[in-house]
Amino acid sequence: LIGSLSSEQMRAIVDDMSPDDRTRLLEEMPAAVTKRLLDSLSADKITAARKLLGYPAETAGRYMTPAYVALKPAMTVAEAFEHIRRSSRATETLNVVYVLDGEDRLVKDLRLATLVRAEPDAIVGEIDDRPPVAVLAHDDRESVLKQFEKYDRVALPVTDAAGHMLGIITVDDMLDVAEQEATEDMHKLGGLEALDEPYHTTGFWSMLKKRGGWLSVLFIGEMFTASAMGRFEMEIQQAVVLALFVPLIISSGGNSGSQAATLIIRALALTELRLRDFARVALRELGSGVALGAWLGLLGFVRIVVWQRMGWVDYGDHYMLVAPTVLVSLVGVVTFGTLTGSMLPFLLRAVGFDPATSSAPFVATLVDVTGLVIYFTVAFYLLRGTLL
Amino acid sequence: LIGSLSSEQMRAIVDDMSPDDRTRLLEEMPAAVTKRLLDSLSADKITAARKLLGYPAETAGRYMTPAYVALKPAMTVAEAFEHIRRSSRATETLNVVYVLDGEDRLVKDLRLATLVRAEPDAIVGEIDDRPPVAVLAHDDRESVLKQFEKYDRVALPVTDAAGHMLGIITVDDMLDVAEQEATEDMHKLGGLEALDEPYHTTGFWSMLKKRGGWLSVLFIGEMFTASAMGRFEMEIQQAVVLALFVPLIISSGGNSGSQAATLIIRALALTELRLRDFARVALRELGSGVALGAWLGLLGFVRIVVWQRMGWVDYGDHYMLVAPTVLVSLVGVVTFGTLTGSMLPFLLRAVGFDPATSSAPFVATLVDVTGLVIYFTVAFYLLRGTLL
Repeated sequence: LIGSLSSEQMRAIVDDMSPDDRTRLLEEMPAAVTKRLLDSLSADKITAARKLLGYPAETAGRYMTPAYVALKPAMTVAEAFEHIRRSSRATETLNVVYVLDGEDRLVKDLRLATLVRAEPDAIVGEIDDRPPVAVLAHDDRESVLKQFEKYDRVALPVTDAAGHMLGIITVDDMLDVAEQEATEDMHKLGGLEALDEPYHTTGFWSMLKKRGGWLSVLFIGEMFTASAMGRFEMEIQQAVVLALFVPLIISSGGNSGSQAATLIIRALALTELRLRDFARVALRELGSGVALGAWLGLLGFVRIVVWQRMGWVDYGDHYMLVAPTVLVSLVGVVTFGTLTGSMLPFLLRAVGFDPATSSAPFVATLVDVTGLVIYFTVAFYLLRGTLL
Repeated sequence: LIGSLSSEQMRAIVDDMSPDDRTRLLEEMPAAVTKRLLDSLSADKITAARKLLGYPAETAGRYMTPAYVALKPAMTVAEAFEHIRRSSRATETLNVVYVLDGEDRLVKDLRLATLVRAEPDAIVGEIDDRPPVAVLAHDDRESVLKQFEKYDRVALPVTDAAGHMLGIITVDDMLDVAEQEATEDMHKLGGLEALDEPYHTTGFWSMLKKRGGWLSVLFIGEMFTASAMGRFEMEIQQAVVLALFVPLIISSGGNSGSQAATLIIRALALTELRLRDFARVALRELGSGVALGAWLGLLGFVRIVVWQRMGWVDYGDHYMLVAPTVLVSLVGVVTFGTLTGSMLPFLLRAVGFDPATSSAPFVATLVDVTGLVIYFTVAFYLLRGTLL
């Protein structure tokens, strides 16, 4: 029945449906009808139609186009070229042509280049090209991108679960996807919700919401620094000099944490690292953290001693105790920051969240609170009986 | 003379040359010889050869391949197909074929699809396809990527300055480039030098150097926080409660700065924003900064008043003066952070640096120092005669 409707009629019906009904229809509708519907639309309507057809955002279905050439397995190469000449339009992607069986199931794809080199009387169904690769309409665009990278194709066919051909995705669309995915990850890494649109077309209020949400979360997290410092109010009162180095020490933890988080998040996104690598990474980052912390601690130590000796500042009689306090704290804080920054993305991935959520500011907030506790605890033990 | 050498002989000569001589040779060598040299190499040797030929890293020359089909303008379509059938190899990209004149200068490119649809006796030189686009061998890979995005091509021809055809670049190679460029920007944004290799293949010491360099710079910048706080040592001594909110306030400036920097850096990289947009962005970010600062200030105000009233903390008799100090400071610090984060990338671009260098941690460091000055100055005026 549905196959006998005109494209106009089909569109009118689909238009009136609830999203749930549309999705159900899509699942039950023969692939050939989907293609006919898409085929009947002009290029600028296709984007709307794909959405209309109920494919979820960021799935292969949203990127496919019906502009491909289908061949029958029984055709000869000469017939195939005749068919291509007759049926193809200028907008079509001819780099790859698709061989479909009588029920529009994808049999294989052939590069046009392979056809050109084949004998004119060869049978299309018998020509061997590279192994076929297809994606499903409901596949996530990130996994489609990975297929393109893996197989170096200029176009990939999209099928339903039963193998019926629905359309093709071309690699130039994937170039945009790769950039969008990177933009999303960067935005998350920078501590805001990913904008879905370019900066200048995002509305002022929608932008404020995307930034204000995370800023509020981070602010509430950062409130614990006030509580943490409140517990050491007495120590600060007795040795104000300790307060002077608070920003220096906690920011070092935050910076080393940002670095580690950035490295691991990107490596996970590019699948250079996988979940099972976490122990190896932890060990390596432990080494990095101790080395970087010791180096920064040394810089801090020298800064305090030189400034004091030159008479540029006066950290009091016990500056030779303050300096090692800063050094030891930095080793602890930077090591903690590095480990937190590198392990949090693994943890988020393990529990099913996007690792990019462990943004640089998020790691910094975690490390700030802990960094204060490390610093004042070190101070408490090293300065007991002298400054404190 | 050089044209008469065998490929083996050429390679031996090129191998013995200094890099400077190689670059000079390349500039003087006829394009046809370059192509013959590249052509004589197997696929896995091409990467090495392109380097050998002296094209600088990250230029088009490093990505081109000689695996394309060249046609003469005088050929008929039928002759062109005969030529393609005879000369092409399986590894070749046939999606686009190239029409070269008698001196190997690129005349135009033709999609194979266009040839298939043309009449067999049509003259290749007279067939009209889309407008030709080519890149130069010394073009930066980022600009090549932009050409691919702009023109939606599957392959672009590479020529020398005189228009001689050197090779082609295919879009699947650009997919890797897009990801590498994004990775570089993310690493910079995260406050470290971009790794040139994946995380797990980068050596421990080389990794330490890439991270330690920026960490040291940031640490030295952050030392100014100790100097800034030192100037307010007396005030802290008199009102230790002020010190408790230092991390909260400066981190809020840093976080809003990271957000703004991330947004602007990415928008500049994707050319969604250009240098001339800076005034419009400044105005908009000023608005965002004030709004976000007021919101966080309100949260901070409520936190102080509620915690005090509930008896969970004791900020002293003047807590109703401390709370507005925090509120006003947050408006100032967040506004300053947002403006710094959004304008620094423009400034760096304007003076010829990579905007991505204004990493989140770099902005945070700048804002930390200024944030302290803003906070203690606000405190000085609001608390004079009471707490101070």
